Parts: sequence; structure tokens; C-alpha cells
Amino acid sequence: MKITAVIMAGGKGERFWPKSRTSYPKQFLSLTSDGETMIQKTVKRLLPIVSMEDIFIVTNENYVSLINEQLPDIPQENILAEPVARNTAPCIALAASVISKKYDDAVMMVLPSDHLIRYEEFYVDTLKRAAKVAQKGENLVTIGITPTYPETGYGYIKFMSADDDELAGAYKVDKFVEKPCLEKAKEYLNSGRYLWNSGMFVWKVSTIMDNFQKYLPDMYEGYLKMKEAAFTATFRETLAECFENFKSESVDFGIMEKAENIYTLSGSFGWDDVGSWLALERINQTDECGNYVTGDVISIDTTKSIICGNKKLIATLGVEDLIVVDTDDAMLICTKDHTQQVKKVIETLRTCNRRDLI
Amino acid sequence: MKITAVIMAGGKGERFWPKSRTSYPKQFLSLTSDGETMIQKTVKRLLPIVSMEDIFIVTNENYVSLINEQLPDIPQENILAEPVARNTAPCIALAASVISKKYDDAVMMVLPSDHLIRYEEFYVDTLKRAAKVAQKGENLVTIGITPTYPETGYGYIKFMSADDDELAGAYKVDKFVEKPCLEKAKEYLNSGRYLWNSGMFVWKVSTIMDNFQKYLPDMYEGYLKMKEAAFTATFRETLAECFENFKSESVDFGIMEKAENIYTLSGSFGWDDVGSWLALERINQTDECGNYVTGDVISIDTTKSIICGNKKLIATLGVEDLIVVDTDDAMLICTKDHTQQVKKVIETLRTCNRRDLI
Repeated sequence: MKITAVIMAGGKGERFWPKSRTSYPKQFLSLTSDGETMIQKTVKRLLPIVSMEDIFIVTNENYVSLINEQLPDIPQENILAEPVARNTAPCIALAASVISKKYDDAVMMVLPSDHLIRYEEFYVDTLKRAAKVAQKGENLVTIGITPTYPETGYGYIKFMSADDDELAGAYKVDKFVEKPCLEKAKEYLNSGRYLWNSGMFVWKVSTIMDNFQKYLPDMYEGYLKMKEAAFTATFRETLAECFENFKSESVDFGIMEKAENIYTLSGSFGWDDVGSWLALERINQTDECGNYVTGDVISIDTTKSIICGNKKLIATLGVEDLIVVDTDDAMLICTKDHTQQVKKVIETLRTCNRRDLI
Repeated sequence: MKITAVIMAGGKGERFWPKSRTSYPKQFLSLTSDGETMIQKTVKRLLPIVSMEDIFIVTNENYVSLINEQLPDIPQENILAEPVARNTAPCIALAASVISKKYDDAVMMVLPSDHLIRYEEFYVDTLKRAAKVAQKGENLVTIGITPTYPETGYGYIKFMSADDDELAGAYKVDKFVEKPCLEKAKEYLNSGRYLWNSGMFVWKVSTIMDNFQKYLPDMYEGYLKMKEAAFTATFRETLAECFENFKSESVDFGIMEKAENIYTLSGSFGWDDVGSWLALERINQTDECGNYVTGDVISIDTTKSIICGNKKLIATLGVEDLIVVDTDDAMLICTKDHTQQVKKVIETLRTCNRRDLI
């Protein structure tokens, strides 16, 4: 069966303000020293499994030109522009409509556009195994990450003992759990029964759409309409109409928490969700003082800090655990323990009617 | 006797980098909310005692146009441009040469250009009393500040009991002492015998030049030459020649620590030497979180910080006790306990041959 990839690239990346903007979000930024953007890396690491023609990118209308610019080899018809953002369920229905029109049925690997994978061969192996499991019946496969510490910022997947040798390495999912407190996270880590929810899914179009029909029937109707219109002149119009009516819904809540036959395959491929500015010191080399520094920076008595300079010289003196990000029109100065609150700045900008800076 | 003021305005103000630059040092900056620059305030507060015609400004050649711009009412001939900086003794000899040529003898009040005085009437009263003491004999008068806490960043003046009713309020100086350690500073504070050395002096031209003749005879020779050339076409040339030969010497070390008849008058006029970026929160109103903020700044969970924005938005998040100063081409981010080390940045810039930023 044909294997396709669906890259979800509609995010706003607010936690990476001020570099990430509504008009230029995180997935289009280069956050590593090699100069590649997050979405370029995402596509590149998939090429051992799928060809460019089978990579579909679901994104916001406003980002189509950015994708054309950064990924010129992706066929234009594979760039699926949502008229409005309605979370992941409508996004998946849209991709499914185009893929099923083109290939009837196929395996869909649904992947975020803004994560980092360090061991790409392990990643490819995991996806290949997941595609096999997805094809052996009506299985919904989610990629779980083996936790290495009690992270409280991720959701977790609880799995059951394996009882089917046919699905070697895939475990039936018991339940999905929300971001835990630290105590719970420690319990999960030590139980050997929980994985991090990476937001990567693998299934056949037919399997996921059967589940849409069962759990999100209105959205399934929309899927049928979009499929009918796909590759015709009325596609754009149909999309606008469908998305207008779709409620905002995540596939996790709308399908995964209710469906049967959910399996998880655990991956250990150096996954990083690059969830905040803190990630920069994890995914890049730091200097002897533990600083990650780019641009024109003089750092004196400065330790464990992240300093992203822009055009002007930045001199830091005596600072520790500080994050500094300079851009042409805005600058963030933030302590490490406040990286999750960058959204507060955006809320303030919204309140002050300064949308040009968001 | 004529009373004149000599304002020393040749300083580089390195501790106020990046706002203060070699080409635009601290005395020409406005550091208070009223928009007046330090040197404009210095001149303004003297006008109850001396007229514009009797205010002399000794400065570097490069700052003459800045002074013309900020103080258009100071007569051009009262702006005395040093060809090279040689500390305070040559600066005073130069001013003395011009004043004595113009007035024969006169009282000279030698004052810094970059300090702040909160109680200007008390200040004027103190200077008037000092001028009286200076005229009652061959006295060198230094203004001492009554300490309010054990500051380790200033020099101190130890004085003796008063034994002369004629000089009511002026005390004979026992000795000048260098910046003390904290323990010593506490001892000085509690002894009731020490004052802060403010670097303000009042004396007759004849008195100070007699002391130059005795303790700095080479500089006295230069003084005589400059006096001869003053207000003639050869003045500039004579200055260049004299300053080339002057050694670099402070009046404190060269004269005050050796001379007789030194008196101190204690002032309590809300003096602040505005010695570092920390001063901004002392001399300006802070907000309810203890922040002093200027420019386009959004501060969230930010306390006790000093944020001077420039053209772009600066968002601070979770920071405390931090100093941020933005300018067009350079920015400082510094913890409060490192304000005395801003010079390290300048040293680094010098080493890196980036004099455009100094």
C-alpha cells in the first residue's frame, strides 16, 4: 500500500516570540546552526520512506508562499491551505480527502512540522514499523517516546502488555493522560508503562475515516465533500464552506481518546519538541560557560544563558540563566523559568493593539 | 572679590556605556525625566551665585560643539579645550590662567559637570560659605558630604575639631583617605569625623597657584605661559605645547594631600555622583514593582530593574535586579551587582578593535 506523509504546519509558534511571528512562525525558522529550517528538516528526514510527491503539507493560507520558498520540490497540489485553523481533526480530514481521492486508500503518517529528531535512522525505522502495524488490520498507531525524565509539559500514553506477536513492538494503548504534576510524572516514569505523546500518528486513510464517521460524523460529511471536490476547480470554495462549519477539535480528544484498536510504538530517536527558547541550549552546542550565543555578542561573567543577537552588539555582564532574543523590531529578555510565559507578552501586545509585533 | 565657577567636563563617563560614548559622554546625557542634561543642570544651579560670563568650562576639544549646542549662553571664550586629557591638576591650571588674566585674582569654584544636586538652595548656600572661607586667608576649601551610609566607592575626608570661630562651619582637614573597605567605611561613618570627598573645591586663584608653585612647579611654569597667551592668537598653540609636557596628575594627589590650610565645609544638599546605571533608580521615580523604565517596554513579572528602551519594543519576563540599556548600535544587559564592571565591556571592545562602539 502507498505510504504518504502529512505534515501539519499551521502552528503559530507563539513560544518563540519575537523570532516566531504570526506571519513567520517557528516551523519556518532555523533554530540550529546548520541553517535549515524546522520544516525543511522535517521533510528531509522523511525522504528515505516517502517521495516528495507523497508528502502533503497542511498549513494556513498565509504560509503557502513560505512553503514554496523553503520547499520548492513539494508539488503545489500537495500544499493544502486551511482557510481557518480548526485544530488537528479538520486538518487530518482535509489531508485524508486529498490522499484518498488520489490513491483510494493509503497509509498516512501524520507528523508535526516543528520537532527535532537526532537519530534519523531510528526514526525512519520506527515509522516503517508503524506503517506495517497500521496495515495489519484497522489499527490507529501513535508514536510514543520513551521518557528519560519526569517531564510535566507533555501528555502521556499508558499502554498494556503485548498479547499479539504479530504486532511485535506495538503495544495496545490503555489510555491517554493529560500533562501531569511532577509527582505523577515521576510515578509514570518509574512504572515502565507510560510513554510521552509525541503527536505523531500512523494509520490507513480508511481506518481513520471510519473512526471519523463513528465519532465525528459531521466532519466525516465534510471529508466526503472535500474528497469529491479535490483536484477540481471548486476545491477552494468547498474547503472554505467545510471549514466554516467544522468545530475546532483535536484528533486526540475527538478520536484517539474514544477509539478502539489504538496501538503505540515506542521510539527512542532523540526526539525534541523544541517547545520553548530553552530548547536552543539542548539542540545546539554551548560554550565553556554553558552559554548558547549567536550574533554579535560580548558576554562577560555570563553563564548558562541563551543570547540570540541580531544587528547590534549585545553586551551581557554578570547574567545567569537568562534568555535574550533580539530582532529588528522587538526584543525578549526572559529568565529561563519564565519561557512558558512568553505568551503573556503576546497577550499584552494584543491588548495594546500592537498586532504588527505579534 | 569676583566669584567664578570652573566646570570640569572632560570625563568619558565609561560607566554609562552604551549611552555614554567617547564622542558623547555622560555629562551631555539626560539621565532624569526632565530632559535636561547633566551639564545643563550643573550650569543652571550655579546661576544664583555666578553669571554666565563667569562660568568656565574645561573640556576636551571634541566636546566644544556639544557644549555650544547644550549651553548656547556660555561665552565661547569661556570654553577651554584641553588638547589632551591630563587629569585635574592641568585642568585647574588652565582655568586659573584664563581667570587670572581676565580678573587678576578671583574665587574659583571647581566643580564636576556630571553630578546631581537635589537641594539646590542648600548647595548654593554651601558654596557661598565656602567662597567666604576661601577669601579669609590662603585657604583651600573642599566640600565634604555628610555620609548617610558606609559607602565604599568614595574617598573620605577626615577633619579636625574647629578652633577658629572666624571660619564657622569650616573644619580643618586632617587627611584625605582612599576608598575604604566596608568595615573601615562603617568605622568612618560612626566616628563622626569623616566626610565623603565630593571633588568640589573652592579657593582663590592666587592661593591654588601658590600651591602649584610649591608642589607642582613645572605645571606652574605652564600656567604662567598659558596666562601670558590667554586671549591672544597664540593661546591654542601654547596650550598644545604645555599639555604635551604636563604629566597626568590629580589635584587631590598633587596638591590637596600635601598642602596646608585645607578646610572642609560639610554639605547636605542631596548630592549624588550618579556613578553608575544604578543611580537611575535613585534619581528617578520607580513604578510599583520598583522598576525604572523608559521607552517602549513591556515588563511582566519584572521587579527592581532598570530598563532603558530605545526604538524597538523590549519585553522583559521574570527578571529581577537587571539593567537593560538599548541604543541604536549597542545594548547592555547587566545585573545590578556588575554595574562597576561596565568598563570590562569597553576593554573588550578596545581589544577587538571596535572603537566605533566605544
